[in-house]
Amino acid sequence: MKDKVTIVLFSGELDKALAAFNIAITAATMDMEVTMFFTFWGLNVIRKSEGSTKGKGWMRWMLKVMNRGGSQHLKLSNFNMGGLGPWMIKKLMKDINMPQLEEMIKITHDLGVKMLACSTTQGLMGLDKDSFIPEADPPCGAATYLDKANNAQINLFI
Amino acid sequence: MKDKVTIVLFSGELDKALAAFNIAITAATMDMEVTMFFTFWGLNVIRKSEGSTKGKGWMRWMLKVMNRGGSQHLKLSNFNMGGLGPWMIKKLMKDINMPQLEEMIKITHDLGVKMLACSTTQGLMGLDKDSFIPEADPPCGAATYLDKANNAQINLFI
Amino acid sequence: MKDKVTIVLFSGELDKALAAFNIAITAATMDMEVTMFFTFWGLNVIRKSEGSTKGKGWMRWMLKVMNRGGSQHLKLSNFNMGGLGPWMIKKLMKDINMPQLEEMIKITHDLGVKMLACSTTQGLMGLDKDSFIPEADPPCGAATYLDKANNAQINLFI
Repeated sequence: MKDKVTIVLFSGELDKALAAFNIAITAATMDMEVTMFFTFWGLNVIRKSEGSTKGKGWMRWMLKVMNRGGSQHLKLSNFNMGGLGPWMIKKLMKDINMPQLEEMIKITHDLGVKMLACSTTQGLMGLDKDSFIPEADPPCGAATYLDKANNAQINLFI
Repeated sequence: MKDKVTIVLFSGELDKALAAFNIAITAATMDMEVTMFFTFWGLNVIRKSEGSTKGKGWMRWMLKVMNRGGSQHLKLSNFNMGGLGPWMIKKLMKDINMPQLEEMIKITHDLGVKMLACSTTQGLMGLDKDSFIPEADPPCGAATYLDKANNAQINLFI
Repeated sequence: MKDKVTIVLFSGELDKALAAFNIAITAATMDMEVTMFFTFWGLNVIRKSEGSTKGKGWMRWMLKVMNRGGSQHLKLSNFNMGGLGPWMIKKLMKDINMPQLEEMIKITHDLGVKMLACSTTQGLMGLDKDSFIPEADPPCGAATYLDKANNAQINLFI
């Protein structure tokens, strides 16, 4: 039986997403079974960049405008500097031949890692299944997460 | 013997508190034994809104004024916008019939989840037992937390 | 065989570092085997304050200027107020006879806790082995972390 890892990605920040996917990819290459759960701002990481927020009213419209999805639009938790920080980090990653987040997401998917959106925050933010990238798996609730985590050796909340 | 979960809530932000209580409630309804530890800014989540910071000096006075307790005063980790963000999230939660944080805290308590304040940061912030909501359990130190976590399957730091 | 704890310190903020080292010290005094992994901004916590960022180009120069290392230069995740917040916390810690972070790092090291820098983010930020305090152990990759975590009962991401 495979060793198991679960990762909740709550944060929608580039640096935390890089940490999460780096751990996920490394664990999967070590033949561990990895499940990632994306909740709250973390949903942005697996949203299509053109994926729009559904639902009526000005609040969801504001969410749509401000809380832009897509892995290439993420901010840094520190030194974001209006987008200069993320640009710099991406450049430095390229300099040391590290794959970018978009490639890491594809690699993660190809390694068989499950990428599950949290159904509760998905509903809260007016997202539906068309909002997510094709690599994302069908959304699920906290009970599914807890079942997985209860059988895993490593459980992280990022 | 019950499966066990521990959650450290370090953050005093509304979105992270919602995640923590959602996991706690779901785990408790799945018949898991859940223990929550509130430390640093997380103490604000289980503080009375009128609960004042104790101790002398201008620093504790500043803490009292700025670091306002009470689950209804929490900010968002993103898009706080001077309180507009939390108001919007609360409204969206109401729209999808999700209970508010105050109700979630009561439900969590009723499900038998322990809610323990960290005694070290409680002292640091000049709080005493009168500072907390009635649902909170007596505070404890890091050793109590580690004992619990060492016997739990799922340990999260939020 | 000893109970095991791993702590990833991703954050470079004073309050989160205090939480991480408080847990590490308490666990080590309870005779648990503790391993700490410092990644991304967390690398700043075990950097020499005079340790400079290596590498050419204006981006690493900016990182060097802005992302200053050393445990005495850390910010707070809340109420940083241009350095007033960290100063206040340090003063309040002194008032209740709590050791400062620098002392906690020394105590942690003396208790035999391993302090490992993440080699990937070390490279990304242009740091080398001379960048770190003498208490730090040689850097390692995510696979070493996952091996440790897979055999630990408590795994935290802070």
